[in-house]
Amino acid sequence: MSQSPASPTLSVGSVAAKPYVALTAMSRDIYALRSAVGLLSWDQETMMPPAGGEGRARSMAALSRVIHQRYCDARLRDLLDACDAEPELSAEQKSVARELRRDRDKAVKIPESLAAEIAETTSLSQRVWAEARPKNDTKAFNPWLAKVISLRRQEAECLGYAETPYDALLDNYEPGARTGSMRKLLRDLKAELVPMLGRILEAQGKSGASLDGKAFLVPAQKAFNARILVEMGFNMAAGRLDESAHPFTEGLYAGDVRLTTRYSETDLMSALFSTLHEGGHGIYEQGFLPEFAGTPMAEAVSLGIHESQSRLWENQVGRSKDFWSFYYPDLQRTFPSSLAAVNLDAFLKSVNRVRPSLIRVEADEVTYNLHIVLRFELETALFAGELEAAGLESAWNDGMRSNLGVTPDAPARGYMQDVHWSCGLLGYFPTYTLGNLRAAQLFDAAHRDMPGLSADIRAGKFASLKDWLGRKVHRQGRCLDGDALMLAATGSKTSAGPFLAYLKGKYAQLYG
Amino acid sequence: MSQSPASPTLSVGSVAAKPYVALTAMSRDIYALRSAVGLLSWDQETMMPPAGGEGRARSMAALSRVIHQRYCDARLRDLLDACDAEPELSAEQKSVARELRRDRDKAVKIPESLAAEIAETTSLSQRVWAEARPKNDTKAFNPWLAKVISLRRQEAECLGYAETPYDALLDNYEPGARTGSMRKLLRDLKAELVPMLGRILEAQGKSGASLDGKAFLVPAQKAFNARILVEMGFNMAAGRLDESAHPFTEGLYAGDVRLTTRYSETDLMSALFSTLHEGGHGIYEQGFLPEFAGTPMAEAVSLGIHESQSRLWENQVGRSKDFWSFYYPDLQRTFPSSLAAVNLDAFLKSVNRVRPSLIRVEADEVTYNLHIVLRFELETALFAGELEAAGLESAWNDGMRSNLGVTPDAPARGYMQDVHWSCGLLGYFPTYTLGNLRAAQLFDAAHRDMPGLSADIRAGKFASLKDWLGRKVHRQGRCLDGDALMLAATGSKTSAGPFLAYLKGKYAQLYG
Repeated sequence: MSQSPASPTLSVGSVAAKPYVALTAMSRDIYALRSAVGLLSWDQETMMPPAGGEGRARSMAALSRVIHQRYCDARLRDLLDACDAEPELSAEQKSVARELRRDRDKAVKIPESLAAEIAETTSLSQRVWAEARPKNDTKAFNPWLAKVISLRRQEAECLGYAETPYDALLDNYEPGARTGSMRKLLRDLKAELVPMLGRILEAQGKSGASLDGKAFLVPAQKAFNARILVEMGFNMAAGRLDESAHPFTEGLYAGDVRLTTRYSETDLMSALFSTLHEGGHGIYEQGFLPEFAGTPMAEAVSLGIHESQSRLWENQVGRSKDFWSFYYPDLQRTFPSSLAAVNLDAFLKSVNRVRPSLIRVEADEVTYNLHIVLRFELETALFAGELEAAGLESAWNDGMRSNLGVTPDAPARGYMQDVHWSCGLLGYFPTYTLGNLRAAQLFDAAHRDMPGLSADIRAGKFASLKDWLGRKVHRQGRCLDGDALMLAATGSKTSAGPFLAYLKGKYAQLYG
Repeated sequence: MSQSPASPTLSVGSVAAKPYVALTAMSRDIYALRSAVGLLSWDQETMMPPAGGEGRARSMAALSRVIHQRYCDARLRDLLDACDAEPELSAEQKSVARELRRDRDKAVKIPESLAAEIAETTSLSQRVWAEARPKNDTKAFNPWLAKVISLRRQEAECLGYAETPYDALLDNYEPGARTGSMRKLLRDLKAELVPMLGRILEAQGKSGASLDGKAFLVPAQKAFNARILVEMGFNMAAGRLDESAHPFTEGLYAGDVRLTTRYSETDLMSALFSTLHEGGHGIYEQGFLPEFAGTPMAEAVSLGIHESQSRLWENQVGRSKDFWSFYYPDLQRTFPSSLAAVNLDAFLKSVNRVRPSLIRVEADEVTYNLHIVLRFELETALFAGELEAAGLESAWNDGMRSNLGVTPDAPARGYMQDVHWSCGLLGYFPTYTLGNLRAAQLFDAAHRDMPGLSADIRAGKFASLKDWLGRKVHRQGRCLDGDALMLAATGSKTSAGPFLAYLKGKYAQLYG
């Protein structure tokens, strides 16, 4: 132990009231321990040797218990009460106290025995899923899924909810979200997307060069991705880019944000767009106000806002003609034998190709949300008891046929494709669609605020966009909830309009 | 949190008494948290981006406080008392309880305010040292050194000691070691080494090929080192080999042991021998009994025993004719342009070349311990108040002249060369010499027990040696203290005899 202990004062703008100072000291302690969990988790996916799993699980469990105890500590409650009685707090300081209370209230509502049972069951269930999926062993998996759903129902009852138990789950990932309004949003979206999909597929026909069958050497991909990551504004002195089976972002502190991607020699897009995607998450995590480090003001609002940042860079920026007008000549020079004969328009058609498919993570921008709509319909039905785990396979297959016109050939590429359900992540999928809608909405607002934005992107200049996102989103921390943030940043709450207009505009431009 | 919580039972051979079961659950919890600190520390030296330092320091401090609180928890004391009253415990189980009490007793004796002051001062002092050393700024460094020594004196008073305060520091790294016997051991050693050094230098003369000026491509070094590491018995499925500025080993769990080395294109020896050295540490950390994971029985006895494992593989094995009889032809084939003209005897002379020098970490086997002798003399004088920090530079230079016949050209290559003192590691250096002596002593005993050992090594077979060390050292955990372990393994306590005989034999063989 050769480190200096955390200093007990926070140098915020206003003179901090005493209970607030003590509160932030407790908060920074909790966040410091949560960062340690973040490192354990990052390391597990990127560095840990195979035999390290058992010990790692013990360290994760031990730290999680410590953190839970900290949230439940009566001293935290007392300081929160004292801060509520404090008239001198700034808006940001009030947000710190409000959000700490929110996290505390959730923690104390879950009995330790239930938390332990959920942790143990989801861990085992995830392992069962990993073994059962390649064998399409639905009989092994379904009872575990049923158990996980039942435990999450118990959790919802402990947490409480506004209208329906599923609200409690949504609220874990998207504070303030409600099942009813989410259902309406997704139904309206589906009503527009299904006919749009038909029109695009018809217009697309067999046109557009494909990159299938071409090769892209991995070292050259790495160099190109690293360059784009830096130029979009990710600070490599405060982060890393590594490789893992599934790309992800782990923000330990604003000064240490870790991204991963994965490379394939036959698929240029996989690493490129996952780097842009995780880069968007990473710029968010690097962009919190440093004076609020270790508090909820240095944390993302919600998964739906986090995903808006990744999707904006991946799609609105990364699949645009503006972006590739700048980068495509260099990309061609990097991979001359594969790209010399593919012009910019053909390349853009290729990266924006719409293809209804079985697998969510491979889906294009149009069909992606139809995957999410189906998952939401199934999750709410499961949670309401209208559907049993055993009936999920056929409900899934029916839904894929009606939403996307494709039929899974096996459960592994059907309802068992994602890890989420096996580890209890119910209420999580809808945040992906929230991210997609908000990305388009924010990008729209950024263009309104900055008429020169397109020209900047065509010139490979991203500072104006990063700065705008910093002001409107990153530096806000958890000051507002997702919808309030969207209202403040764009003038309206989350809506599908800008996203649908964005798709219409893009595909009209591509296919006339 | 998707991990299964630690199970509360330990499947040891005998039926475990109830307080013992509860005790091991607490122990495993503490060790799980300590492993998390280990990962934070490993990552800091190998992976962490530059801007991550501030957040990392907070996570380290927060976790260290949690661990300290756990050791001081009254429940731990009560369980230890209950275990003491338990007649059914096995020898190993008694060791677990005894060593946990030892660690607990040390933790509770240090007031939290002193622990915090030591942590903060040594952290700052280390930064001062890092800045002052390249500038030879003794005026900046000396007051910090004085402060660190004064804090360590206070710590010694809190911990208590048998004869002299320095005993308390020694005991932190080498339980049971005493200043008096350490002084005698080192004096006797010095009395033999100084004349031996003269004789070797005379015999060596200007003979022996040198590898200076030759080049060794790093990728080829990496492949060669990785092969040796696996063949000596390090399990790569339960560990990693990375690079860092200073090589080290971090054992998180027996299933996750991390080594580092460093490569230089102009220095074949640096990576090769540091890999063998850290590999020795690593095999120790991988070799604890799995059923005692998360207890002191899955932990090294002391630094002096740990160092015996690294030095044995680095020196007794790695600088021997037996070893290179097997590997040298392959090494020549790996680096043909640099080694084709260097025969085995010339190579052995080169890797065993004796050269009195200013820098400890570059020292050969003969002069290395003379560096340690000097540090011990100076540390004990500083601690006894017979020497002030301000007088250290000239005392150091005098000692180097009389022990080694060399005079430092600057403090950076003199008393400021090592990080240890700046971060308060007083009483630590002597364990390096204990490691050197014990390595020779253990290797001797292994040869006595296994007459075919030399032939095994000449055939590139290390399983017999690894297994012998496993039985005599690794699987013993903290059952015995360092001297008792040496007695059990070799028939005598730590002594300089085998080491001196080893050196005499080696240099007689090399130079006749």
